[in-house]
Amino acid sequence: MADGALIFPAAEFERRAAALQQQMARDGIDALLLTNAADITYLAGFLTRFWESPTRPWFLVLPADGAPVAVIPAIGKALMDRTWVKDIRTWASPDPDDDGTSLLADTIREQSADGARIGMAIGPESALRMPLVQLHQIERSIGGRVVVDATQTIHRVREIKSEPEINRIRAACRVADLAFARVPDFARAGSRLDDVFRSFQCALLESGADWVSYTAGGAGPGGYFDVISPADGTPLRRGDVLMLDTGAVVDGYFCDFDRNFSVGAPAQAVAQTHAALIRATDSALAQLRPGLLAEDAHRIMADALVESGATPIGGRFGHGLGLSLTEWPSLQPGDTTPLRAGMVLTLEPGAEVSPGRILVHEENIVLRPDGAQLLSARAPRQLPILSA
Amino acid sequence: MADGALIFPAAEFERRAAALQQQMARDGIDALLLTNAADITYLAGFLTRFWESPTRPWFLVLPADGAPVAVIPAIGKALMDRTWVKDIRTWASPDPDDDGTSLLADTIREQSADGARIGMAIGPESALRMPLVQLHQIERSIGGRVVVDATQTIHRVREIKSEPEINRIRAACRVADLAFARVPDFARAGSRLDDVFRSFQCALLESGADWVSYTAGGAGPGGYFDVISPADGTPLRRGDVLMLDTGAVVDGYFCDFDRNFSVGAPAQAVAQTHAALIRATDSALAQLRPGLLAEDAHRIMADALVESGATPIGGRFGHGLGLSLTEWPSLQPGDTTPLRAGMVLTLEPGAEVSPGRILVHEENIVLRPDGAQLLSARAPRQLPILSA
Repeated sequence: MADGALIFPAAEFERRAAALQQQMARDGIDALLLTNAADITYLAGFLTRFWESPTRPWFLVLPADGAPVAVIPAIGKALMDRTWVKDIRTWASPDPDDDGTSLLADTIREQSADGARIGMAIGPESALRMPLVQLHQIERSIGGRVVVDATQTIHRVREIKSEPEINRIRAACRVADLAFARVPDFARAGSRLDDVFRSFQCALLESGADWVSYTAGGAGPGGYFDVISPADGTPLRRGDVLMLDTGAVVDGYFCDFDRNFSVGAPAQAVAQTHAALIRATDSALAQLRPGLLAEDAHRIMADALVESGATPIGGRFGHGLGLSLTEWPSLQPGDTTPLRAGMVLTLEPGAEVSPGRILVHEENIVLRPDGAQLLSARAPRQLPILSA
Repeated sequence: MADGALIFPAAEFERRAAALQQQMARDGIDALLLTNAADITYLAGFLTRFWESPTRPWFLVLPADGAPVAVIPAIGKALMDRTWVKDIRTWASPDPDDDGTSLLADTIREQSADGARIGMAIGPESALRMPLVQLHQIERSIGGRVVVDATQTIHRVREIKSEPEINRIRAACRVADLAFARVPDFARAGSRLDDVFRSFQCALLESGADWVSYTAGGAGPGGYFDVISPADGTPLRRGDVLMLDTGAVVDGYFCDFDRNFSVGAPAQAVAQTHAALIRATDSALAQLRPGLLAEDAHRIMADALVESGATPIGGRFGHGLGLSLTEWPSLQPGDTTPLRAGMVLTLEPGAEVSPGRILVHEENIVLRPDGAQLLSARAPRQLPILSA
């Protein structure tokens, strides 16, 4: 990662705060209370793997006007001091009697008027990264103020990436490009899948990942049936398709794409399905434009698969990407989120090779005013072949 | 990781379910609703890195008697099918209109009587890994049933590790032992801290980690001042103390300990402080027994530091460890949780070298009926020296 904890200059965070406050004004939100890693990292630049420890809650309050206030465990003070956030209030956490509750309630009362609407991410795709019992205590301690759902307020701002953010996601994609290119060096017939996963994670680190928050994959004869299982010790066999998928992290930003490999020459059905997935991605790359809806992207890819004689699988065909491995919107029927310039998306069509055997192919793009721009290096049109 | 998704035989999970149900009966909980990764992995054996995706909620319902019921996104069905959970109900997620809400409400009504108390982890050290708005909808849909705090119910059971669990944590500690032994190969004066972090993560993977969910550390002249920052490009310099801390994962179980290294010979104050930390750990290893309280462990280590002429830092001196990087209890004044045989704990005394410069030393243990048993290989009594 870059030198210093800030990653970006203060102006980038001032822009983010202003964008959130503008959207808050539109949505009738008087202050934001952020609790989760991605939201707090977004607004404060507070980048740490310490979120892995579930022990302590962390809070950031953004008033309608002015700068955010951090209300955090003392263990985070030194790191928060290196960010653009100047108003930092700490307590000795964990404290089961008052784990920041009174300090946060005081801060909310100070930063908002009586009757204020305090927005939190409590809608679809959210988690409440604090004890619910504690939230209830805070709600009773903030007078006439009320907690309301600000999920969409946050989504509309975070879903449009700035150029510095796009550059970080591109850097994460570049890391994965380099690591995928090395897969033939450590994966061949006889290689255990868990060893392949370990070597792949090492290759990502050696290619410049700060850390590897996600690896998944699958392998099986003529396709796989599951894309979220961890690896076991099963050896690769001639005729298997190996899929590796990663969320490697650079400066807090994820890539999220996969690559497929055939152990020995692929069966005809595999090669045809892979070609159909490539053509579906071609269609999306050619046709995506701001103003289309998320569900249109799904339709474009599904139609292309059917035209190629392939059978689309269920589920979404891509999603947003950034400080989280998966963000909104979902490229699936019924998601009518407008696609806008600056959105970073995965294109992830999947098709059945045979009943219960699938291939999924994934690329990462940023949507520009005139169309899609690739962030991942395009996958080879021919399925790469591993030694059998 | 071991072959297959189950990791442990079904009998281990049946034992866990029975232990939870026994504790539920004591605490007046009629059914448990689990939503977070550690709790669901604990009871179901559902091990996946897909928790990294915040998009979809996952649910596991444990009735007062009988087997758990999984209510999960369809994308998880193939993996859940490989666990001991037989009753698996799925929906096509994400679905913003009904993201499992009605399916879960139906399941809760079916698995509990009218008026039942539905326990959830909503107390200290918890997060609600589902949208709060969705929980409110579910609460309105489950008739006379009420959601209550079952955090302590879950803690009392999960905090006692079975031998199979202890073996997995020992395996994770062994991975870190091997990787720490390699640090002198890639860290010396002039090495960039971010490169050291990357090489250390690779060493953990090459030593058998399935993945590396946590690395942190610090480096500075005569000690560091922050233990949660990510690494930057600052080179190590003669006189620095380098600390590396990791949560490496084997079969879902974490280790959590650190090691300190001196770049060149340590200053006298550093060597003395390090020796005091070793002696504080000696005291804890000698004196810890079931029946003591969590705060007693802190007192034992703090007293030993003071006897050695060192200045203890604030904050806790250790915590529980298992399926999460940090678990309860906290080894700190005021935590009166009784220590019991089968608890896996970190011993983590810290002391000031000079104002604002600290050393922290950490080991992992399991508490046996007759005292502490090390899971990490004991750190060398002399601070290891890196090439300057």
